[in-house]
Amino acid sequence: MQPRRIALLLAYHGGGFHGFQRQPGFATVQGEVEDAFCAVTGESVTVIGSGRTDAGVHAWGQVAHLDTWSRLPAARLGHALNAYLPDPIVVRQAVDSDASFHANGSAVGKRYGYRLAVAETRPVLHRGLMAWERRADLDLAAMRSGARHLLGRHDFSAFAAAGRTTTNDVRTLQAVHIQRRRGGLVFAFQGDGFLYKMVRNLVGSLIEVGRGRWGPPWIASVLQSRERSRAAATAPPEGLVLWRVLYPKPLFTPVRGHSAGLD
Amino acid sequence: MQPRRIALLLAYHGGGFHGFQRQPGFATVQGEVEDAFCAVTGESVTVIGSGRTDAGVHAWGQVAHLDTWSRLPAARLGHALNAYLPDPIVVRQAVDSDASFHANGSAVGKRYGYRLAVAETRPVLHRGLMAWERRADLDLAAMRSGARHLLGRHDFSAFAAAGRTTTNDVRTLQAVHIQRRRGGLVFAFQGDGFLYKMVRNLVGSLIEVGRGRWGPPWIASVLQSRERSRAAATAPPEGLVLWRVLYPKPLFTPVRGHSAGLD
Repeated sequence: MQPRRIALLLAYHGGGFHGFQRQPGFATVQGEVEDAFCAVTGESVTVIGSGRTDAGVHAWGQVAHLDTWSRLPAARLGHALNAYLPDPIVVRQAVDSDASFHANGSAVGKRYGYRLAVAETRPVLHRGLMAWERRADLDLAAMRSGARHLLGRHDFSAFAAAGRTTTNDVRTLQAVHIQRRRGGLVFAFQGDGFLYKMVRNLVGSLIEVGRGRWGPPWIASVLQSRERSRAAATAPPEGLVLWRVLYPKPLFTPVRGHSAGLD
Repeated sequence: MQPRRIALLLAYHGGGFHGFQRQPGFATVQGEVEDAFCAVTGESVTVIGSGRTDAGVHAWGQVAHLDTWSRLPAARLGHALNAYLPDPIVVRQAVDSDASFHANGSAVGKRYGYRLAVAETRPVLHRGLMAWERRADLDLAAMRSGARHLLGRHDFSAFAAAGRTTTNDVRTLQAVHIQRRRGGLVFAFQGDGFLYKMVRNLVGSLIEVGRGRWGPPWIASVLQSRERSRAAATAPPEGLVLWRVLYPKPLFTPVRGHSAGLD
């Protein structure tokens, strides 16, 4: 007999967690889902996510898989997990998947959003859900123009986390959109993959272009330099949301639900 | 010499406060603003709001006034207050006002919003900012039809807080709108005044109509009965936002800012 593989579509508010990945002694999303699974089934499983998200980073469409001997129908398993999970984490859907499906290995792309309040005073209602820029005169056209230099297949080392060593930093950025949304901005990124802290580093540098500190071509020169030290500071985590993980075959049923402007 | 009167435009996340009104031993919005004012000027003032908001209820456009001997320009006072206020409260604007202006007494109307996530699973990103309804098949047309019975000048006793005694429960409701917003609903109410817990009681009863428990004319019959016991349960506080207080003369400069879909 074989265990079966279950895929989970997860949403979470990253504010109270030390990121996705299990760490002894810290509340993490992976740890909470594994603990809830054990509470429901009595079984210790390993939950494998499509990738990590950092402390404070949110997800509307994180995907994870796990192998279990439980015979509970997947949808019931999802409901049961929600009864045990802390409020800031929810299983939006649980489905049976092929044994060949791997949340990380099968992913062919990701979509991230980044929300920035642009106002003289700090956001209070959406505190923890948006970063904050005080300067009302951000130059949106310049930011969009800078963002166009990022499209396509590049070595993104300059926008990876500092002090990190990876063998391959080449990724393809398929889309970057920056839209005004009620006095703030929403950045949307889609790519075949993202280096650690890459989205927040891209946002940080695009904001500098918006402030007029650098012209749009500066983005191209930072990218070409492959030097992390040339890019701007990393934008804070609370603005970032993992919207969606893309797979060759859709796993989950599209459900009209409360996406709160995040998908 | 006379003290001068300052009007404040306040936004706050009500989650961490025991409502607006000062209460010894509890964190309240009024208490925090008075404490911040004392920290900035050394002066003990009384901050008078346009009305109370309950524990957990948010404001995007609460208005308050205070009298002070301070000679600091109003805008600088606002910035200084923000440096002392806790993160969930912000002074959006501070302006000099006529001595005849009274945040409560001069108000001629208010606008409230109520946000309801409608989804099978609880909202996690906007937890604390939206109430939650699990039933995806809420009948919006029936709710709108029920809401029309509320428009105009009525004795709203049936939708006032239970166990309360007021001499005059007659109010004029000028507008009620219910809109779909990304899989959830936003209710908007404008009236010349609202009884204690009235908006949350109206929302609670309209949701029952949406669920099909009662037809739209039930709203009219509850209203006419003037009996609180006939209305539905009070909707939870976290969905409610005081959007705006209306005065005969605009007090504050319209500023494009981060309203986060709340104004």
